[in-house]
Amino acid sequence: MEPVIALCRDLISRPSVTPEDAGCQVLMMDRLAALGFRCTPLPFGNTENFWAEHGDPAGPLFVFAGHTDVVPPGPASAWESDPFTPTETDGMLRGRGAADMKGSLAAMVVATERFIASHPDHRGRIGFLITSDEEGPATDGTVRVVEWLREQGTTIDWCLVGEPSSSEHVGDVVKNGRRGSLGATLTVRGVQGHVAYPQRADNPIHRALPALAELASRHWDAGNDFFPPTSLQLTNAYGGTGATNVVPGEFTVLFNFRFSTESTAAGLKAAVEEIFDRHGLDYHLHWTLFGEPFLTPEGELVAATQAAIRAVTGRETLLSTAGGTSDGRFIAPTGAQVLELGPVNATIHQVNECVRCEDLLTLAEIYESVLGKLLAD
Amino acid sequence: MEPVIALCRDLISRPSVTPEDAGCQVLMMDRLAALGFRCTPLPFGNTENFWAEHGDPAGPLFVFAGHTDVVPPGPASAWESDPFTPTETDGMLRGRGAADMKGSLAAMVVATERFIASHPDHRGRIGFLITSDEEGPATDGTVRVVEWLREQGTTIDWCLVGEPSSSEHVGDVVKNGRRGSLGATLTVRGVQGHVAYPQRADNPIHRALPALAELASRHWDAGNDFFPPTSLQLTNAYGGTGATNVVPGEFTVLFNFRFSTESTAAGLKAAVEEIFDRHGLDYHLHWTLFGEPFLTPEGELVAATQAAIRAVTGRETLLSTAGGTSDGRFIAPTGAQVLELGPVNATIHQVNECVRCEDLLTLAEIYESVLGKLLAD
Repeated sequence: MEPVIALCRDLISRPSVTPEDAGCQVLMMDRLAALGFRCTPLPFGNTENFWAEHGDPAGPLFVFAGHTDVVPPGPASAWESDPFTPTETDGMLRGRGAADMKGSLAAMVVATERFIASHPDHRGRIGFLITSDEEGPATDGTVRVVEWLREQGTTIDWCLVGEPSSSEHVGDVVKNGRRGSLGATLTVRGVQGHVAYPQRADNPIHRALPALAELASRHWDAGNDFFPPTSLQLTNAYGGTGATNVVPGEFTVLFNFRFSTESTAAGLKAAVEEIFDRHGLDYHLHWTLFGEPFLTPEGELVAATQAAIRAVTGRETLLSTAGGTSDGRFIAPTGAQVLELGPVNATIHQVNECVRCEDLLTLAEIYESVLGKLLAD
Repeated sequence: MEPVIALCRDLISRPSVTPEDAGCQVLMMDRLAALGFRCTPLPFGNTENFWAEHGDPAGPLFVFAGHTDVVPPGPASAWESDPFTPTETDGMLRGRGAADMKGSLAAMVVATERFIASHPDHRGRIGFLITSDEEGPATDGTVRVVEWLREQGTTIDWCLVGEPSSSEHVGDVVKNGRRGSLGATLTVRGVQGHVAYPQRADNPIHRALPALAELASRHWDAGNDFFPPTSLQLTNAYGGTGATNVVPGEFTVLFNFRFSTESTAAGLKAAVEEIFDRHGLDYHLHWTLFGEPFLTPEGELVAATQAAIRAVTGRETLLSTAGGTSDGRFIAPTGAQVLELGPVNATIHQVNECVRCEDLLTLAEIYESVLGKLLAD
């Protein structure tokens, strides 16, 4: 059996539902330690993490980043086979985490094994930054390891995150950034009362409507070459006592920005508050910043990755910033060039999650080729 | 003890929480039968009702209308005395239903007893239309009795409803109409999706906002001499899955019109639908008409009632259409002149509901005087 497939199967069979690691990281550290990696387990709270590095501290630092945790499988009976029993059918490997992202982890380890075998004295360093809470709250994982690295004086130059970035074929899409995500809970206050006596009530839904209509129709920015325009969605609205003859005293609305590098969290907050203030609302806003946007423009990492994909697959790569957030948002602010490159994402978070076995072999070749282009001696 | 107070106490001590009657109607029918009334129990579903009449079928028909049911008392421990044990303190009679409307029922019966004693051969007829579901769904009560009267070929000329209409002193306010009430449940349909991919979703909250803002700010009519302007209140709004990263597929809003005789239910429905259609919403509207507005303008009943109040109390009466709905809305459409006249409504539906004993004696005198002005031989 191909080593990448064997390792991926071994990882899938460990039921690491977030924030559980279920022994995946020990398995990876054993393989890396055998290559001479210095491995440091970094547990924080209920989250398992580790950092591992190999090579010369004086040279540039290339990092593979990823997570061993997976999203819950839902009812196992909905799957064609047990979600934690790796199953191969028609060249596809099925199991929870096959695509997101145990296949990438296996490819990273095997690519590193091969690269070090052929380049025992490679320049610079290879690092692994692995967490088990990317699918959960993401508070005790990459964030904390990045903090620890900063305390150690360790600076990442280039980072490949194994998120399943590909659309149709492995390597056809690489994510070179992510939009920012900013959430808010708005509470508009009024005065509760009886529908029959509107003059004694102050309806917070009525008060909020013109401001919310302006919010929903506002143009925030036009995006840029790498980002679509900033988008706002009102996701939840709650008002009313349930009774049809009572004007409610409060109206609550949740909304979420996905924003480009043309906007900032601070700028969006100020613009929203200006609207509510101008409409004279009595309101409270609670903001949650899930991540500022990041962008890795053309540079050594993009060039090496595109060249590696072309060399292995003959395919040109699309740079994209679409999709949800990933742990890359925590690494990019350190100044690192960060890309996400992994298998096809069609089945992630679904029942019968699967990955093409051939794609994992290709992915390992691409990862090895990137290492060669950046760290060959 | 004054007969009005004695009868009111007897009624309060029967715990007739809607739709229960708890023997109140039998008590009233016994008293009326003793006067020569022809009494007809008219139970429908779980609702007790009765019709009683006295006098000459050829003449005009005057009706006392009311309900024996009361709203639930809530926790008895919150009351200063047991809600179904009539208690007199400082000239006030306390107990659930004292003001709404067992005090009125007692005054009606005693007034009728006195009037018939002094006018055994009065002209026309006196009727009683009593139900036990006014505080509940109001479907098997006055509505059904009015239907039954129509089938009998009985037409009401004048009707006094015993609802507690008074503000500071008994008789200071008489209700000569009520606004209409029209409710709606609006469901706006969109397409659910992930916040990160707004182009694949269609946010029903965003779609609805401009239409709802127009709805909330619209001027419906200016009211008239008897009615305040028609008012719309959005009472409940529900949208969202609870998750902050999901665009909901539906948005539901409940609203309620309280409308004057310058508008009609059909006209309001058409205007609302025109707004939603013009905004291109994919929507469903479920309408509930709780009652068309009604108005009893100057005429024999208003003149007799105002004169009776002036004669008994020396007080001028304000005609008003403010406040919630009452069973008068079901009687007015038959062509009857309908007024609501009862005690001070300050404590109705509250804990420690009470009525001034003196006011009940005054109310019985007013009722008797109205009978005299309309039906004295």
